[in-house]
Amino acid sequence: MKMKSRLNPHAMTRNLFALGLCLVLGARADMPPLRGLQEVNQAQVELRGGFWGPRLKTQSAVTIPHALDCLEADGHVTNFDKATGKFVGPLKGHHAFDSDLHKALEGALYSLQHFDDPKLRQRVDGILDRILAAQQPDGFLISYWIDQGLDKKWDDLRLEHQMYNAGHFFEMAVEHNRLTGETNVLNAARRFADHMDGIFGPGRRYDVDGHEEVELALVKLYRATGEPRYLNLARFFLDERGYVHGTEHKLFDPKTAVMPVKPEGKVTQEQQREFWHARLRLRNGRMQDHKPVVDQHRAVGHAVRAGYLYSAMADMVRFMGAPGYEPALDDLWSDVVGRKMYLTGGIGTGQYDDEGFGDPYLLPNDSAYCESCAAIANVLWQHRMNLLKGQSRYADVMELTLYNGLLAGISIAGNGFFYENPLVSDGNLRSSWIGLACCPSNLERILPQVGGLVYSCGPQQVYVNLYAAGEATLKLDKGAVVKIAQTTDYPWDGRIQLAVTPEQASKFDLCLRIPGWALGHPVPSDLYRFADSKAPAIGLKINGRKTAVSPRADGYVHLQRRWKAGDVVELNLPMPVQIVHAHEQVLADKGKVALMRGPLVYCIEAADYPGVDFPRLILPSKASFHAVPQPGLLGGVTVLEGNALADSQHPVKATAIPYYAWANREKGAMKVWIDQAP
Amino acid sequence: MKMKSRLNPHAMTRNLFALGLCLVLGARADMPPLRGLQEVNQAQVELRGGFWGPRLKTQSAVTIPHALDCLEADGHVTNFDKATGKFVGPLKGHHAFDSDLHKALEGALYSLQHFDDPKLRQRVDGILDRILAAQQPDGFLISYWIDQGLDKKWDDLRLEHQMYNAGHFFEMAVEHNRLTGETNVLNAARRFADHMDGIFGPGRRYDVDGHEEVELALVKLYRATGEPRYLNLARFFLDERGYVHGTEHKLFDPKTAVMPVKPEGKVTQEQQREFWHARLRLRNGRMQDHKPVVDQHRAVGHAVRAGYLYSAMADMVRFMGAPGYEPALDDLWSDVVGRKMYLTGGIGTGQYDDEGFGDPYLLPNDSAYCESCAAIANVLWQHRMNLLKGQSRYADVMELTLYNGLLAGISIAGNGFFYENPLVSDGNLRSSWIGLACCPSNLERILPQVGGLVYSCGPQQVYVNLYAAGEATLKLDKGAVVKIAQTTDYPWDGRIQLAVTPEQASKFDLCLRIPGWALGHPVPSDLYRFADSKAPAIGLKINGRKTAVSPRADGYVHLQRRWKAGDVVELNLPMPVQIVHAHEQVLADKGKVALMRGPLVYCIEAADYPGVDFPRLILPSKASFHAVPQPGLLGGVTVLEGNALADSQHPVKATAIPYYAWANREKGAMKVWIDQAP
Repeated sequence: MKMKSRLNPHAMTRNLFALGLCLVLGARADMPPLRGLQEVNQAQVELRGGFWGPRLKTQSAVTIPHALDCLEADGHVTNFDKATGKFVGPLKGHHAFDSDLHKALEGALYSLQHFDDPKLRQRVDGILDRILAAQQPDGFLISYWIDQGLDKKWDDLRLEHQMYNAGHFFEMAVEHNRLTGETNVLNAARRFADHMDGIFGPGRRYDVDGHEEVELALVKLYRATGEPRYLNLARFFLDERGYVHGTEHKLFDPKTAVMPVKPEGKVTQEQQREFWHARLRLRNGRMQDHKPVVDQHRAVGHAVRAGYLYSAMADMVRFMGAPGYEPALDDLWSDVVGRKMYLTGGIGTGQYDDEGFGDPYLLPNDSAYCESCAAIANVLWQHRMNLLKGQSRYADVMELTLYNGLLAGISIAGNGFFYENPLVSDGNLRSSWIGLACCPSNLERILPQVGGLVYSCGPQQVYVNLYAAGEATLKLDKGAVVKIAQTTDYPWDGRIQLAVTPEQASKFDLCLRIPGWALGHPVPSDLYRFADSKAPAIGLKINGRKTAVSPRADGYVHLQRRWKAGDVVELNLPMPVQIVHAHEQVLADKGKVALMRGPLVYCIEAADYPGVDFPRLILPSKASFHAVPQPGLLGGVTVLEGNALADSQHPVKATAIPYYAWANREKGAMKVWIDQAP
Repeated sequence: MKMKSRLNPHAMTRNLFALGLCLVLGARADMPPLRGLQEVNQAQVELRGGFWGPRLKTQSAVTIPHALDCLEADGHVTNFDKATGKFVGPLKGHHAFDSDLHKALEGALYSLQHFDDPKLRQRVDGILDRILAAQQPDGFLISYWIDQGLDKKWDDLRLEHQMYNAGHFFEMAVEHNRLTGETNVLNAARRFADHMDGIFGPGRRYDVDGHEEVELALVKLYRATGEPRYLNLARFFLDERGYVHGTEHKLFDPKTAVMPVKPEGKVTQEQQREFWHARLRLRNGRMQDHKPVVDQHRAVGHAVRAGYLYSAMADMVRFMGAPGYEPALDDLWSDVVGRKMYLTGGIGTGQYDDEGFGDPYLLPNDSAYCESCAAIANVLWQHRMNLLKGQSRYADVMELTLYNGLLAGISIAGNGFFYENPLVSDGNLRSSWIGLACCPSNLERILPQVGGLVYSCGPQQVYVNLYAAGEATLKLDKGAVVKIAQTTDYPWDGRIQLAVTPEQASKFDLCLRIPGWALGHPVPSDLYRFADSKAPAIGLKINGRKTAVSPRADGYVHLQRRWKAGDVVELNLPMPVQIVHAHEQVLADKGKVALMRGPLVYCIEAADYPGVDFPRLILPSKASFHAVPQPGLLGGVTVLEGNALADSQHPVKATAIPYYAWANREKGAMKVWIDQAP
């Protein structure tokens, strides 16, 4: 594996024009969207210092090698050797085992675009060689079936996750090609996709995978190769949801669907429960397969699958039009953001035992499932909605989920992982690895992508979606190349300085997202609100001169001017501590409040309350908190300090820490929503 | 051109098993539908005697050679010679000129499947050679642009009908392959389609043709070749309707659409009119391009285009699923059949000067546009709806349109053609040809296809949709081969005998359509009704034994039994003369009635009323008519005789002839809807 020069970060920062030049030199397709904004890939964004810089270093130095170690130890790689006959031990894991390895490699490939590491490159190369060696002559490449019987390789698609494996292989292959310019892995992905395209599709076999993923991955493969068959196949798989694929092809009808047999006679509680859940799973659309996607207007079922599905649907609108998809997406979004999302951006309750969405407003804090993968899926979806529509409300949810529900999944040291992320706990610590490795490998691959969420581009617009220290080189549709350097301590501090350096003076809109939290609302719905919705004035200066802060309907301030090298924009988003209330229909949060500052949700953790009966800790009716930076605590955080009542009555000093940072000290209780005295 | 033995009708009738055998031997793909019924191609159905036998003979002996003569004389063939440089005269006609020739050839190819004619074969071969010689290296094949400038060949797609030409070429090519087994023309069609697929599609160029046709043709090409790219491309073109395809790709918005500039200053009436119509065309969705097809719930715009579009949409549901299409189709169908269709099955009024649909219930008889092509499009659509849903109501509309609105377009002698088919006239005669030859060439190609409308098959069902003398060899999905011979004088007589001869005794449903008119309703909506809705009893016998007539919800009587050779079914549909009223909202028919018998709509024609002031002829309040066969009149018709009032008061003998047969004598006035004394 050699790295393409264009992706060497040092070359990039040294040479403003490298990107444009390399885009010309590179043979790699990058199909433009039909509609919406142009993605700014993380390869173009170097996050340094601030909040994310150290985290990405930890990711590179700790998380990635740790993940590969764990996966190798668990047999993810020898499974491929077994497929080629070079390993004679037992097959390990389950049918979706490959996907975890592909995700971890994808994470490594992102990271290598910023942190060159010859040892890691060599290691990735070695694993890739072993994976590719197992590819079958027809293109098929999943170790489980190569070992367990290729005659059954496409059986039971709704249960066996074949295409989920394939999708993660495709995503990884695209990043390998982006990093190295080499085509061996990408071509293997194409051969696999071509094999699928020869089996599935109109006039061929009609079926869908039970776990969505391949759909968004096929869009990526289309973008990287320019081959519209992959986009058509993605569309086919999306359109096929909601149908029954047996001897007949017909719409799924819950009334005539085969329900699990109701147990009779002496029935144990467990049998009864199993029947009930099986029934609910069927009824509740666990796989988002209960009706055609264009008819899905309520978010149901497994939250990770849902997030991947909705992501693929948004991609489909952006790259193909796909009439009917957007109205469905709009309703699904309103349903999730308005009725089914935790304050942390987490999604999925324990209600139906299906890792999925519960009923509207039913958001219990203890049994909040909030799978780390679901938070990741939510970030991917919100990012794509923002690319499709260019509206800040999607970035609001993306940011909220990123800093809270998602980041809580991984320890500050980078080697501990949560699968579930409830909003209250008696005490729990992250595992160093999880055998069912979807979450750790997903966390390993999402963080190095964060740079790609920061910006997006229109024909003559640069959108700043997130505030994060670092530099980016952007290319507008009309050809102008612009470098932007952000200096900020966000999210600890709301002051952001943006140095704008166009290749040559040119006219474009610099569009700054004014976060919802800075305008007095924590989420773009009425699901949560600040006790005090009066937001302090936001400051904005261009080259030292004050400018009005007038966000357009899209939620961005459009700074329209002829930009020239040396221009500096200063944005100041005041960050008061906010008391948050939930919608009155959220019974779980009745009489409780939460604390936020900027995009961060805070929690209280028993470690900060020695000698206090933590469960009986409440906030006084006039709770008052202020921010106190603690550079030495939990990797450097700003805590909130204020007043509380111990034993529901005695005043004590209260400390709240960012929710994402909980469970990084000793094991102890935690809560986000705290009872407040009337 | 050699004919494949399987398509020689004599071999077919001699050998029951020929079809099955040849389906095995033939290399030709015939992709099965994903849902709905299997089409029984006209090649499998030999219509002999009865109503259609003589007509198909006339078609073969008169119409086809006549059409080719006229097209050759008008320069349709030399246009291709000009493209190859073998002809130096001027290019003739317009950009859609090729399509007429393709349609006429398609008609000849259908006909040759039943009437072998070496001279015609040779002639078709000769023309095809000249067409194929003009194909460009990239696959492009439209004479107009080859001559006028290949650099502009895909410009102004919404106005120039490029794909309309291509679609008719594809349809013709498929029939050439079906008849001959040769692949030269089909391969040329594939090369042209591949060329289009390389230019249009996701990530390529997004655009649509202004005149739908290519969409249904690409489905045919897919069915004939098994190549899913053609189906995907058809879907792409369908999904792209409703978008603006310029520098941006966005939904068409009538509010911001560029309207024609309103003429100012001294404006002539004509200018004013032109502006108004241009505006209405835009607003009224002339090309069904005003919103995505899944959002189209009201039938608007050019009726031929609409019919072809809806046909392709029904195909798309049948062959691809296409979520969202079926609800739209259901609403469009209810809108057309319930509010916008003439009693003849004709569609399109003169209201917007766009050959298109008018407002609901606005069905003026004099300015009824009812283009022959629109009736053809309606038949194609209803046939496909029936194949999709297996419900007789679609066959009801298909039959009504076929015998009335469509058949009126062509003279009994087979060499006269109407473009418009109003329901009242001061007198008009069919032209021997029309320079804008869409209608004559379309009529030339639709009649030889009628056999293909008669039957359809389910897995274990034979559906009889139309009653027509002749024989058919059908193959059920499960493999059984069944021959059915109909003996009937339908539509003059409602007695039909069906001799059922399965290859070996086998169990299946013989499903007989009980026409709506035999159950007391002329159309499957409340748009028209019989004055007397009490229908006489229908007779049904199997091998001489009476059987109950109990149509299922699908409108068919399912005769479920183990059929064996020699089984005979006799159906007797009594055919009283019916007085028809229109819905009270159809102001044009207020105080008027029409006459029907069986599926035939009747009219009165001045030729039958010598010495009577035709315009003042009315029917008495108690009009009474009876059927009188007139074998010598108008190619053999049954007329209706009854009583009328001349000068609005004096009793006279009245005669009505089938609407389709009008204008086959001297030029004279005609009307379908006749004033009735209160």
